[in-house]
Amino acid sequence: MQERILTGDRITGKLHLGHYVGSLKNRVELQNSYECFVLLADVQALTTHFDHPAIVCDNLRHVAMDYLAAGIDPNRSTLFIQSMIPEIAELTVYFSMFVTVNSLRHNPTIKTEAAERGYKQLNYGFLGYPVSQAADIAICRATLIPVGEDQVPHIEQTRKIIRRFHDLYRPVFPEPQALVGDIPRLTGLDGGRKMGKSSGNAISLDSSPQQVKELIQKAVTDPERIHKNDPGHPDICPIYSYHQAFNAPQADDIYKNCTQGTIGCFECKTKLAAKINELLEPMNERREAISNYPKQIDEILISGTERARALARETMQEVREAMGIAYFAQPR
Amino acid sequence: MQERILTGDRITGKLHLGHYVGSLKNRVELQNSYECFVLLADVQALTTHFDHPAIVCDNLRHVAMDYLAAGIDPNRSTLFIQSMIPEIAELTVYFSMFVTVNSLRHNPTIKTEAAERGYKQLNYGFLGYPVSQAADIAICRATLIPVGEDQVPHIEQTRKIIRRFHDLYRPVFPEPQALVGDIPRLTGLDGGRKMGKSSGNAISLDSSPQQVKELIQKAVTDPERIHKNDPGHPDICPIYSYHQAFNAPQADDIYKNCTQGTIGCFECKTKLAAKINELLEPMNERREAISNYPKQIDEILISGTERARALARETMQEVREAMGIAYFAQPR
Repeated sequence: MQERILTGDRITGKLHLGHYVGSLKNRVELQNSYECFVLLADVQALTTHFDHPAIVCDNLRHVAMDYLAAGIDPNRSTLFIQSMIPEIAELTVYFSMFVTVNSLRHNPTIKTEAAERGYKQLNYGFLGYPVSQAADIAICRATLIPVGEDQVPHIEQTRKIIRRFHDLYRPVFPEPQALVGDIPRLTGLDGGRKMGKSSGNAISLDSSPQQVKELIQKAVTDPERIHKNDPGHPDICPIYSYHQAFNAPQADDIYKNCTQGTIGCFECKTKLAAKINELLEPMNERREAISNYPKQIDEILISGTERARALARETMQEVREAMGIAYFAQPR
Repeated sequence: MQERILTGDRITGKLHLGHYVGSLKNRVELQNSYECFVLLADVQALTTHFDHPAIVCDNLRHVAMDYLAAGIDPNRSTLFIQSMIPEIAELTVYFSMFVTVNSLRHNPTIKTEAAERGYKQLNYGFLGYPVSQAADIAICRATLIPVGEDQVPHIEQTRKIIRRFHDLYRPVFPEPQALVGDIPRLTGLDGGRKMGKSSGNAISLDSSPQQVKELIQKAVTDPERIHKNDPGHPDICPIYSYHQAFNAPQADDIYKNCTQGTIGCFECKTKLAAKINELLEPMNERREAISNYPKQIDEILISGTERARALARETMQEVREAMGIAYFAQPR
């Protein structure tokens, strides 16, 4: 069986270097070996952003552009928009019947969120996020889901729902496997635990070379290093972690020179900015090329969504047949 | 504004006299004054019957037949099938974002169900039943919902969700009103509180005259009345309650004769069976007429569902526009 990958992002802002390192880079490689579906998860984003949906709308095309600029090839990867596949909502409704409220309340992601917002504010849609995630995966009959180790329980939840469906009716879906990989997490420019658009500590993928230089130069470093010749502590310096991510061959030298006080922060940052700009340069070129044909993005999204929808319709027809609710010979 | 009514039934069995008295009779009248949509709620039924979906499939056409036999006119009332309107599932997903888990747990219906089955077994889909009910109503932009007094809070929940949508985005839906009427409840043949197919104490609408006679003769009466001349207690006799429902002009006489011991149960039941058969006779005739063209039922369901779906698509396009997620000029 040809493996099929499902991956994607919640549409809550432009993509940044954290996304690139954490998943995008990997996806560009995966499309060489697998059939890839890339979900622009706007509905999922709305679950937490329903009170300012403009964030979703404003960023949809931008994220698509980020994908293409990073090297996602629309001929090998199917980009599709969640809200335009009503079959996902349909399947979510059926899957919702096989999952107890209790098991969802014990889901780690839900628990974290509930702890942050308080159970009183937890909305019904958010509680069902593991169910709709299962529907995303099942509707395109994906077999492999790239995740970090910590996300394996989510895939297990999906497998559980699918097995329940098969026990109740008959097999329709493959049981998806987690494609567990290292999902590196990039520190923020402010030294914060995670680079994130909303934290304002990110370098977005559409940054110009000048912007990259400025952002890097303003980034937090080892606070104990006052003078250029003071020995530094690269292990707590975000700049060093970026060297590891974007300048691996020279990272050991940087480490040595920093701890010995033989390279200053300005120089260290200049080297890094150059490396990041090397990475972003071809992306910026692709972005500019695409920008000259703005309709192209829409065409790619529409045709990808149509492709995904044809598959989703097929899946739902099989679901209805398996459940015994395909009442008429002619599928609608 | 032309008022539009939404009404319907969960598809869990054939319809019986309890349905006729409680809602069907009223619907046949309502279609003279209003635009009526009648939902065959198969998805809703599956929420509690997902482990034996054949009940739903086996009864769908039968219920449609019951509607037509009872006098629902497919030219004036739109019969439509819930599972064939994916837009209901879509709208449910959006509505799910505006409702807290907590408020659903305090819903009276959910509370009752949870108390019966235990919270541990409560499935996620069932917890969301007030949300999907709101979507049923909103998707066809219904303005009037016939309900009993006890169901008014359900309509209030729908109005609340709709107002939340309007506050967040912009007005799309009418705020539906409860059309509060007396929803008489028919006692069971066994004297049980409610006639119900699953309780085995019902007279289904497709019963033959002979079946009606037999069922009525076997029905429970006042247990203290041993001999024909014993004074009876009609207030606790299901047969008397049926006289009130189906033989109102003679009910007072029956009451008097029963309490005076001047009418025996056999005679009283014979009179009642005749009255019920008078009611069912034209239904049976219509049913037979339709049975000669079995394709007709399918055609009525398909065309009603298409009509409802066209409306649902329109509604969802407006929903997407209001939320700002109608990304492309061309609606799909």
